[in-house]
Amino acid sequence: MPTFSAPVRDMAFVIEEIGELSRISALPGHSEATADLVTAVLAEAGKFGAGVLAPLNPVGDRQGCRLENGKVSLAPGFVDAYKRFVAAGWNAVPFDPEFGGQGLPWLVGTAVQEIWHSANMAFGLIPMLTQGAVDLLSTHGTEDQKALYLPKLVSGQWTGTMNLTEPGAGSDVGALKTKAVRKGDHYRITGQKIFITGGEHDAAENIVHLVLARLPDAPPGVKGISLFLVPKFLVNPDGSMGQRNDIKCLKLEHKLGINGSPTCVMAYGDDEGAIGSLVGGENQGLALMFTMMNNARLAVGLEAIAVAERAMQKAQAYARERVQGIAPGHAAPGPIIRHPDVRRMLMTQRVLVEANRALAYYVASRLDIARRDPDKAERARAHAEVDLLIPVVKSWGTDSGVKVADLTIQVFGGMGFIEETGVAQHLRDVRITAIYEGTNGIQAMDLVGRKLIRDQGEALRAHIAEMRKVDEALAAVGGEDFAVLRRQLAAAVFAVSAAMDFILTRHAGDPHLAGSVAAPFLDLLAVTSGGWLMARMALAANRRLDEGGDDEAFLIARIKAARFFADVILPQAGALLGVIEAGSGAVAEDWL
Amino acid sequence: MPTFSAPVRDMAFVIEEIGELSRISALPGHSEATADLVTAVLAEAGKFGAGVLAPLNPVGDRQGCRLENGKVSLAPGFVDAYKRFVAAGWNAVPFDPEFGGQGLPWLVGTAVQEIWHSANMAFGLIPMLTQGAVDLLSTHGTEDQKALYLPKLVSGQWTGTMNLTEPGAGSDVGALKTKAVRKGDHYRITGQKIFITGGEHDAAENIVHLVLARLPDAPPGVKGISLFLVPKFLVNPDGSMGQRNDIKCLKLEHKLGINGSPTCVMAYGDDEGAIGSLVGGENQGLALMFTMMNNARLAVGLEAIAVAERAMQKAQAYARERVQGIAPGHAAPGPIIRHPDVRRMLMTQRVLVEANRALAYYVASRLDIARRDPDKAERARAHAEVDLLIPVVKSWGTDSGVKVADLTIQVFGGMGFIEETGVAQHLRDVRITAIYEGTNGIQAMDLVGRKLIRDQGEALRAHIAEMRKVDEALAAVGGEDFAVLRRQLAAAVFAVSAAMDFILTRHAGDPHLAGSVAAPFLDLLAVTSGGWLMARMALAANRRLDEGGDDEAFLIARIKAARFFADVILPQAGALLGVIEAGSGAVAEDWL
Repeated sequence: MPTFSAPVRDMAFVIEEIGELSRISALPGHSEATADLVTAVLAEAGKFGAGVLAPLNPVGDRQGCRLENGKVSLAPGFVDAYKRFVAAGWNAVPFDPEFGGQGLPWLVGTAVQEIWHSANMAFGLIPMLTQGAVDLLSTHGTEDQKALYLPKLVSGQWTGTMNLTEPGAGSDVGALKTKAVRKGDHYRITGQKIFITGGEHDAAENIVHLVLARLPDAPPGVKGISLFLVPKFLVNPDGSMGQRNDIKCLKLEHKLGINGSPTCVMAYGDDEGAIGSLVGGENQGLALMFTMMNNARLAVGLEAIAVAERAMQKAQAYARERVQGIAPGHAAPGPIIRHPDVRRMLMTQRVLVEANRALAYYVASRLDIARRDPDKAERARAHAEVDLLIPVVKSWGTDSGVKVADLTIQVFGGMGFIEETGVAQHLRDVRITAIYEGTNGIQAMDLVGRKLIRDQGEALRAHIAEMRKVDEALAAVGGEDFAVLRRQLAAAVFAVSAAMDFILTRHAGDPHLAGSVAAPFLDLLAVTSGGWLMARMALAANRRLDEGGDDEAFLIARIKAARFFADVILPQAGALLGVIEAGSGAVAEDWL
Repeated sequence: MPTFSAPVRDMAFVIEEIGELSRISALPGHSEATADLVTAVLAEAGKFGAGVLAPLNPVGDRQGCRLENGKVSLAPGFVDAYKRFVAAGWNAVPFDPEFGGQGLPWLVGTAVQEIWHSANMAFGLIPMLTQGAVDLLSTHGTEDQKALYLPKLVSGQWTGTMNLTEPGAGSDVGALKTKAVRKGDHYRITGQKIFITGGEHDAAENIVHLVLARLPDAPPGVKGISLFLVPKFLVNPDGSMGQRNDIKCLKLEHKLGINGSPTCVMAYGDDEGAIGSLVGGENQGLALMFTMMNNARLAVGLEAIAVAERAMQKAQAYARERVQGIAPGHAAPGPIIRHPDVRRMLMTQRVLVEANRALAYYVASRLDIARRDPDKAERARAHAEVDLLIPVVKSWGTDSGVKVADLTIQVFGGMGFIEETGVAQHLRDVRITAIYEGTNGIQAMDLVGRKLIRDQGEALRAHIAEMRKVDEALAAVGGEDFAVLRRQLAAAVFAVSAAMDFILTRHAGDPHLAGSVAAPFLDLLAVTSGGWLMARMALAANRRLDEGGDDEAFLIARIKAARFFADVILPQAGALLGVIEAGSGAVAEDWL
C-alpha cells in the first residue's frame, strides 16, 4: 500500500484553469503567486504532509487523546509534528504579512490546507480552527487584540478554538446560556461548552478561545449573543504570559472518528469566572461569526474532499494490486480494476473528488476577488457568488467525502471492514464533516432561505448565466464526449432554473415548501455546478491538447472524467427536479 | 431513549398483505400459521429481543470477543443469552419438524429473524450461520450426516459456520487452495480460511464447519471445489462427542463493527489434517453452496433492514424529544421533528425500511411457494421470481440499511458522532452487509448476467407483468395520492422495461456493457419493485379503511408513505435509466 501522495498536478490544474490563477495573481498584493511558485509550495506541502503528517494518521486514530488532571495530551508524535509545522511557516500561508503571514491568495491557502487534511484530518483541525480565530480577530479585533494575539496565532505558536455549542444549543445557537458579566475593563465568563475541537491540548503554549456568551441584559435569542476572547493563559500588555485563566477541560468525547483530535467539554468560570475581552460590539456575536462562516464552511467542505482524495488513492492502488477473477476481454485472473463495476466505483470517486475540488477552489478564488479586486462591482458579484455556493461546497463536499470513503471500503471488500487496512478510518473521520460547522440540512436551508428566496433569485440567476456561458464553447468542440457533456449540462442547468422558479413562485403560499425541498435543491445545484466545472476543465484540457501541451494522458483523462460525470452523475438533475416539484407533499405533516 | 421495540404491527401487516399469509398457510404443512399465531410468535420474539438481546448490543460492541490460548470468549452475557435463546426454541422456528424444527413458513421465520438482528446483529449472526448449515445438510447431507448433526443444529445446541474465503480467494471463490485428501472413510483438510464468522466461540458445545476445499486431482477453478463437514469436536456414531479436531482459531479480526461477533482466521490441519466428511459429491461444492445462497442472501438483506429499523426508531424518538429551533408554523422552539428537513430524513428512513421489508418478506413467501406449492408450474414461477429478486433484496436492502443508519447519525447531529449514544454502532455494524455473502457489485452482476441475460429476460418480463397488475387498482382509487403513485410507478416500470431491452439488445456486441450498467440496473429494479410493493400496501390499507378496519392512523400512514416513496424515491428511476442508456461509455477503458 503506497503512502499518501499529494495530487499536486491535479491541484495546479484546477488552480490555474478554474481558480484562474493569472487573474488572482493580478490582484493587489498577490503578484508573487505565480504558477511556478504555487507548484513549488504545493510540492513542499506535499512532502511535509506525506512524510510527517500521514504516518501519524493511524496513530491518532488508535491512541487518541488523553485527559489527565485537566491536561490533554495529543497522540504520540502530534506535538512534535505541530512544532515542525509551525517552524516551517505552514500555519501562516494565507494570512496578512502585517502580522507575520505569507500573504498568499486564499486560493493557494485552500489547496495547501487540503494537503494537511488528506494527510491527517485530526491534525489538520488544529490550523483550521486557528484560522477561524485569525479571521475573526483580523476583521473584528481591537488594535490591542490584534497586536497581542494575531502574530502568535498567525505563526501557530498559539492555537484557536470556536466555542458555540452547548448541550441545549446546537443548530439553534440562539438558545445558548453561557453568561458574561462586565467587571471593569474585562468580562467574566461562566458556563459549559461542548464539542470544542482542540479545547485543550499540549501542542501550543496558549489557546485562544473565542466564546459566544450572553450578557445579563441581552435580548433573547440570536440578537443577544456576544463574542469574547478568552485565553487559556492571560496575556500581559507586554505580550508576556500571565496567570492561568479559569477554564477547564472536563471530558474528552469518545467519538466515531477523528480520534486524534481532542473534542472537549469545556467549563468556564468554575471559580470566579473566566476572564475575557469583548470582540466587536456587545450583542454582535452572531453577526461576527457570520463574517468567518464562509471561510470555515469552505474549509470543512474541502476537508471532506481531502479525506476523499486520500481514500480514493488507496482504492485505486488496491484495485490495481488485488488479483481476483477474470474480467471481460481477458483470459486469466487479473487486478480487479479490470472489472467494469470496480472501475465504475473508482471513477465515481474520481469525478466526485475532481468536481468538488474544482468547486471549492473556484469559491476560494472568488473569495480572493471579493476581498481584493479594485472594482467594487466585481467584488460584489464575487461576494454574491461565494455566498450562494458556500452551502453547496460544504454540503456536497461532505456528502461526497462520505460517499467516496464508503466506496473505498466497498472496493476493498472484506478487507475494508478490517481496521488494520486503515480505510475504515477515513469513513469514520469524514463522517463528522456533514454535521459540524452547520449540519448539511442547515446548509440547505441557508441556501434556499437566505441565498435564494431573500434576493428573489438574483444571485442564482447570475450563476446560471455564468454556467450557460460554456455551452457555446462545448458546441464548438467536435466529438461525442463534448456533445454528451453539452446536452446533459444544458438539461441540468435547465432543471436548476425550473426548480428556482418553482420555489420562488410557491414558497410564500406554502410554509413547509422551503424546508421540504431544500436538500434536493442543494443537491441539484451541486451536481449542476460540478458538471459545469467538469465541462470547463474538459474544455481547458482540450485547449491544452490543441496547444500541444505535454502530459497528454492527463489531459485526455480530464475529458473522459467530464464525460463520465455527464453520463453517471448529471442524470440525477432530472430526478432531483422531480423531487422538488413534488413540493412539500407528504412531508408537510407528521404521519410517521 | 426508549429501548428497541419490535414493529409487530408493521410486520404482521406485511406478512398478511404482501407475504399473502392466507395463501402460505394453505400450503401443505403450514396450516397452523394463522395470522393470530404469527402475531403471537412475533410478540414473544419481540419480548426476547427487547428484553434479552438488545441490552447486550452495546456490550458486544464495546467489549468485543477475546482470543486466549485458542479459545474465544464472547462478550459478557452473550453465552447466557444464547442458552436462553436455544432453550426457548427460537433457533428451530423455520426448520423441518422431522429434525426438531417448528415447521413454520420461511415467511414467518424471516420476520422472527429480523427481530434478532434489530436487537443485536452480532448475536443474530450465530443463528443465521447455523441456518446456512441446516439448509445445506437438509438438502445435501447423507442420512448419517442428517441424523448426527441436524437435530443439534436445528435446536441450536451446536452452531454452524461457512468456510469459503481465503486470503487469495474472496469474490473469486474458485481460487481457493485449502486441500482435502481422502483417507479411508473420511477426508483430511489442511489450509487457512479467513473472515469466518463464529469460527470459534464458547456459546455452543460443538461447532460444525462447512468447508470448501480442493481434492488433489480436482479440476481447476470453481469446478474443482468440494464441500466438507468438519466439526470442532468429532462426533461418534452414537452421537456422543469424540476428540477435538485439528482446527484452530489463529486470530480475531479487529473490525469496523459487529464487534460482538468473532470473525476468525481459522487454521485447518496444522497437525495431520482436520477430519471431515464429504457433503454431496466430490467437486460439487460450489453447486451445493448455490442451493443455500438464496436463503443466505435474503437473510443478509433482511439483517440490514433490521438494523435500519432499530436505527430509525432511535432517530424518531430523538427527533420527538430534542428541542431545537422554531419550525415553520410555530411560535416557540419545539422538537426537531417539526422541521420539514428532519421529517424528510425520517420519512426517507421509514419508506426505505418499509419497502425493503416488503420486498424481503415477499421473496420469503415465494420461497415457501417454490418449496411447497402442489402445482409444479407455480413452484417454478415462484422459484424464478426468487432467483431474480434475491440479488435485489441483498443489495438494495444492505445499501438502504447503510443509508438509514447514516441518516440516524445525521438526525442526531453532533450527538450521533459520539459513541455513547449508540447510533454510530448501527452504521459500523450494518456496513459489512453490503460486502459479505457476495459484495453488492457481485449481486448486480449476478442479476444482469445470470438472471437477466441468461434467460433473455423471461423472468424479468414475468415480474414486470406482475408489477403492472396494480395499475388498474391504483386507477380505481380516487385522490391525488393514488394518482401520483400510479403515474410514478408506471414511469418506473417503463424504465425497467426499457433498460432490459437496452441491455438485451446490446450486451453481445459490447463485453463491457453488462458490468458497466449492472449496479444502476439493480438499483432501478430495486426502487421500482419497492414502489410496486408500497403501492400494494397502500391499496391494502385503502381496502382495510373501506372495510372500517381499526387503526385508522396506521392505515392512512401506509398511504402517505407510499405517496412519499412516489414523490421522493421513484424519480430515481428515470435518472438510473439515463445512466444505463449511457452504456459502457467512459467506463470501458481505464483512464484513471
